[in-house]
Amino acid sequence: MSSTFGRLFTITTFGESHGPAVGVLVDGLPPGLPVDPAAIQRDLDRRRPGQSAITTQRQEADRVEIVSGVFEGLSLGTPVMMLVRNTDQRSKDYDALKDVFRPGHADYAYAQKYGFRDHRGGGRSSGRETVGRVAAGALARSALATVGVSLVGGTVRVGDVEASHRNWDEAEQNLVRCPDAAAAEKMIAIIEHARDEKDSVGGVVEVVARGVPAGWGDPTMSKLDAMLGAAMLSIPATKGVEIGGGFGMTFLRGSQTNDVFDGERYETNFAGGISGGISNGNEIVVRVAVRPATSIGKPQVMAKAGGGTEKVAIEGRHDPCICPRVVPVAEAMAAITLMDAWLRQRALRGHDR
Amino acid sequence: MSSTFGRLFTITTFGESHGPAVGVLVDGLPPGLPVDPAAIQRDLDRRRPGQSAITTQRQEADRVEIVSGVFEGLSLGTPVMMLVRNTDQRSKDYDALKDVFRPGHADYAYAQKYGFRDHRGGGRSSGRETVGRVAAGALARSALATVGVSLVGGTVRVGDVEASHRNWDEAEQNLVRCPDAAAAEKMIAIIEHARDEKDSVGGVVEVVARGVPAGWGDPTMSKLDAMLGAAMLSIPATKGVEIGGGFGMTFLRGSQTNDVFDGERYETNFAGGISGGISNGNEIVVRVAVRPATSIGKPQVMAKAGGGTEKVAIEGRHDPCICPRVVPVAEAMAAITLMDAWLRQRALRGHDR
Amino acid sequence: MSSTFGRLFTITTFGESHGPAVGVLVDGLPPGLPVDPAAIQRDLDRRRPGQSAITTQRQEADRVEIVSGVFEGLSLGTPVMMLVRNTDQRSKDYDALKDVFRPGHADYAYAQKYGFRDHRGGGRSSGRETVGRVAAGALARSALATVGVSLVGGTVRVGDVEASHRNWDEAEQNLVRCPDAAAAEKMIAIIEHARDEKDSVGGVVEVVARGVPAGWGDPTMSKLDAMLGAAMLSIPATKGVEIGGGFGMTFLRGSQTNDVFDGERYETNFAGGISGGISNGNEIVVRVAVRPATSIGKPQVMAKAGGGTEKVAIEGRHDPCICPRVVPVAEAMAAITLMDAWLRQRALRGHDR
Amino acid sequence: MSSTFGRLFTITTFGESHGPAVGVLVDGLPPGLPVDPAAIQRDLDRRRPGQSAITTQRQEADRVEIVSGVFEGLSLGTPVMMLVRNTDQRSKDYDALKDVFRPGHADYAYAQKYGFRDHRGGGRSSGRETVGRVAAGALARSALATVGVSLVGGTVRVGDVEASHRNWDEAEQNLVRCPDAAAAEKMIAIIEHARDEKDSVGGVVEVVARGVPAGWGDPTMSKLDAMLGAAMLSIPATKGVEIGGGFGMTFLRGSQTNDVFDGERYETNFAGGISGGISNGNEIVVRVAVRPATSIGKPQVMAKAGGGTEKVAIEGRHDPCICPRVVPVAEAMAAITLMDAWLRQRALRGHDR
Repeated sequence: MSSTFGRLFTITTFGESHGPAVGVLVDGLPPGLPVDPAAIQRDLDRRRPGQSAITTQRQEADRVEIVSGVFEGLSLGTPVMMLVRNTDQRSKDYDALKDVFRPGHADYAYAQKYGFRDHRGGGRSSGRETVGRVAAGALARSALATVGVSLVGGTVRVGDVEASHRNWDEAEQNLVRCPDAAAAEKMIAIIEHARDEKDSVGGVVEVVARGVPAGWGDPTMSKLDAMLGAAMLSIPATKGVEIGGGFGMTFLRGSQTNDVFDGERYETNFAGGISGGISNGNEIVVRVAVRPATSIGKPQVMAKAGGGTEKVAIEGRHDPCICPRVVPVAEAMAAITLMDAWLRQRALRGHDR
Repeated sequence: MSSTFGRLFTITTFGESHGPAVGVLVDGLPPGLPVDPAAIQRDLDRRRPGQSAITTQRQEADRVEIVSGVFEGLSLGTPVMMLVRNTDQRSKDYDALKDVFRPGHADYAYAQKYGFRDHRGGGRSSGRETVGRVAAGALARSALATVGVSLVGGTVRVGDVEASHRNWDEAEQNLVRCPDAAAAEKMIAIIEHARDEKDSVGGVVEVVARGVPAGWGDPTMSKLDAMLGAAMLSIPATKGVEIGGGFGMTFLRGSQTNDVFDGERYETNFAGGISGGISNGNEIVVRVAVRPATSIGKPQVMAKAGGGTEKVAIEGRHDPCICPRVVPVAEAMAAITLMDAWLRQRALRGHDR
Repeated sequence: MSSTFGRLFTITTFGESHGPAVGVLVDGLPPGLPVDPAAIQRDLDRRRPGQSAITTQRQEADRVEIVSGVFEGLSLGTPVMMLVRNTDQRSKDYDALKDVFRPGHADYAYAQKYGFRDHRGGGRSSGRETVGRVAAGALARSALATVGVSLVGGTVRVGDVEASHRNWDEAEQNLVRCPDAAAAEKMIAIIEHARDEKDSVGGVVEVVARGVPAGWGDPTMSKLDAMLGAAMLSIPATKGVEIGGGFGMTFLRGSQTNDVFDGERYETNFAGGISGGISNGNEIVVRVAVRPATSIGKPQVMAKAGGGTEKVAIEGRHDPCICPRVVPVAEAMAAITLMDAWLRQRALRGHDR
Repeated sequence: MSSTFGRLFTITTFGESHGPAVGVLVDGLPPGLPVDPAAIQRDLDRRRPGQSAITTQRQEADRVEIVSGVFEGLSLGTPVMMLVRNTDQRSKDYDALKDVFRPGHADYAYAQKYGFRDHRGGGRSSGRETVGRVAAGALARSALATVGVSLVGGTVRVGDVEASHRNWDEAEQNLVRCPDAAAAEKMIAIIEHARDEKDSVGGVVEVVARGVPAGWGDPTMSKLDAMLGAAMLSIPATKGVEIGGGFGMTFLRGSQTNDVFDGERYETNFAGGISGGISNGNEIVVRVAVRPATSIGKPQVMAKAGGGTEKVAIEGRHDPCICPRVVPVAEAMAAITLMDAWLRQRALRGHDR
């Protein structure tokens, strides 16, 4: 159950980076919804390694097979299992890392937790696990679209280069998925520079959900903020999350940050569309802090399993900045979170929205 | 189930701000642990309204009654229900607010969600709900102490005044609970200034857990980061959370933020003690963004339930800065999260830690 | 979480037999439903000890206090906590039993599980725990009534005396709650005979739910049969459960037990109203096997905690047959199960039923 | 989540009878345990259709692929996904049944629940779903064996022929899996007779777990009886379950059914090894009522989707008695239930058993 996210719309991912396949089991998708394999594939392609010069060069076609839960193009209301075979596993690249703990990685923590681990490519801790999230997210997005909810996302900061505006149409036009085309160019330059130095850079990814009616999310322990927080911080390499005004609004005063509302429109959106844990009708805005990728080519000091340290350069194909590939994952996790909140609200009120 | 936090150590809070009582039901506390009502009361007193000049003047003794699950001073392993009676409810103060939606508050979202609400003092959305969290957290802290895990916390920023160091012994010596006594004085000045202007200020609260062994927390959906994120963002008035280096480390490079480890000690703690979602043996560090309190005395424009707006000043007794009272709540939620992770690890490995 | 039943309509009971109180926390009751304390009390009175000559003479008024979740007579949609204080605890009666394990009771199993137990009146294993179930069940019944679902129940066998018909109006007219008034007299005679011999007798309780529309319950792991099975077998002193034709239909053939259906009416009800785990529009029928009460006045051989055995007569006030008091508990658990299935179906389909 | 069984050791099955595959996702298997594909296959072969003259003649090799969670023959502690491809789907056989509701089947209930269904071979309601249960059960059995817990099972009644003894070694030596070889012959004769008349017969399956230490299972809502009850009644075609003395002991008196215990041994086992919901050190005994298979070749009256009825004979390959194939499924579900209880007890006490 530790690998499951959601209560009514649940996703459980499975698979190791260098095992036969990765995938996801989705339970709770309502029946009768169109399921379009092409739409799922489209999101997977946005997450795919090797998609551009600034992502890892591991080549995976990431072709999805829908194994269950769909009949004649419609969801059955039964579990949907989706599978993506691993093909380009260069497990040999990892032989040298079998007995060391890479800094920043989960190697040591896994070894201590399980007493045993699949060292090849990080095994279960690999970002490859997110394939299943994206596939599940595509189902959630299609379902949400039927009630007018849509999501957009992009990279809004890399290093110290920040997007100055949010033109979401621009986001998919550049390699870094930035909603500010001019900033995107500078971001790409920073990433290429880090790549050339066998290093990596961090950044911030933002997701916005539009059309969410007021009333989704539950008070206290299942606040929409809390569920989005868990969703985002479950994505590998994330170390922070903020809703609406986030950390920035803690510098201000209540008289500035209480979003004035006339019953129809809000003047501001410091709450990020969520009040008391419940959607308030405003756009939902969430940002996630993406750390510099821990896999870098530079030689680093590593602890050895048997004791002592060693300076090792990690061979393999790395992402110099994970942000562009986190974008579809963060969108997927936000969609899954909203899907779950939507179904809960249907249970509570007994009507569609 | 929406009001429940945790999987193996679960807490469910109940109660409205102006109802007969608030409290918590804790399930999953292992048997045979000493339960000290005085320790619970101590934490409740740290959360209590009216404790100082910079908190709300609502007076609640907040006396806890342990109703079940304890026998002859020891936990039975059965559900522990704890109850705190509400006494100083000036429900009349809220009559004027029955038909308006206070800006920044959950009033409108609740009305849309439930079609019906208890308007008195925010009902269920009141910060008073956190009484149960603190009582449950005290049980978790006692239990964690038996395996050498302890937690400290404090206010590390108010407005733009930041603590320059973490001397946790100082934190309980000043009204704002800041681990830097000099900064505390400036923070208090800022808070008093806002209070005098019938306004409020925001800030940041930090919690540190010491002694957590490597191996707690689960990969993917139940990462310790994710669980702490949900825990923190379930606290009223929070809009952001970060672990270790958080948003700050996104300005840096991987070669700077990969915490070098020699098998025993880490040189840095950008990971905040969590790698791949699992504790790595370092101190666990989490910070939460606390928005300026939404309840302010200044007149504000409010939407009326029947349509239109009105300018109203909210009578009542407000906290000009919630940070000092969030500290024990954030500590409690962190303790509950770690307690849950500990029990999961016991299940996984079949030994004590 | 072990003390929680249900997924969307969840109940968690708490309290020890000789502790300060017993009660229940209900989460997931939809908002805006009338909550009538008198209706709750009515069901509690049907479960109450001391209600007749054939029940235990422990005297408990069992007055319920609704602590949260209700405002101006309506459910808020927030957790409902209900409390019943224990008053007539003759804990002294149990001093002699502190160091022995009563046969048939949970004493030994608890001691092995927890390493520690509240021996007074069985502590948590006491039938007194069911107070909370009945209170929660009353909420579920009221809610179900709004969509035309009602439940009846009664004792249909005691020892070898079986009810020959189901006249549910008769059930509440006799002490044993039998839907066959003539059989009831014989049942009472059997019970009195056992009581006079300081012994106890077993029986069977049946619950029927009417008006459940087709479509409630989920396939595979959450079949309505499975949920009802868990609900019934979670009631103390039950050792069997059957749906519809149950064990009896295993003597027959498929051509006899496939309930013929013309699209509106079923000719028979071997399926007990559930096909493939989902309600099929027929009446839902569940029966539970109630063992002879384990508490008897006759001297019995008991294992001593320190080793060896002893012959002891259990002092105290016993139920010679638990069936009459199980009836309201079984109805409550069936109502809670259906309530949960109803809300799940609302989530799945997005409309009221 | 409706398709998930268990809390700490969770299984989620997926797949439709005539879809590409069926399978299971297991989460919570502790790390470092040997996983033997041959042992899994062995149990699958016991469940396999076409294994004998008295089972359906659908031919499925049921070859299992372990997709994740296992590395170098050992469990990783991560999700184990196992897949079995469907091969012998004669979907055409079901064309005639597309617009009728087969009596006794879930067709009508599914149509009402989902508004849409996969009619081919029952889709998700097919017994084929149990493939995943058996595969997951094999993992649980291997894990339980490491602490000395083993399970046996068999058919103990078919129609009115009852096994007179339990010689479990005999059970796998006859087609009906009866622990009484002489009774087995009579059972087979009954089954063949029903088959020849295009009809089906019911029966009872029993599972016994040995070596379970006292202390597994939780009080109140997660009693071992309740969890086993849910486990058994989640198996297709079951309509009753009993523990130990079950319905039979309700004819007796407390002085007869209170299992006398001397601190080491029990004289009887009316409790079926469970007291107060917790294992008491005795053998755990559970029996499940298996209805006569609903799929029969005899012409039957069926409701038509558009209204009216029709007399139709169901073509296809049917099981005249499901008991022999339910045996491995019931064993698997019992093993999964005990596995979950074991891990819960490890969490509670922090030691291995």
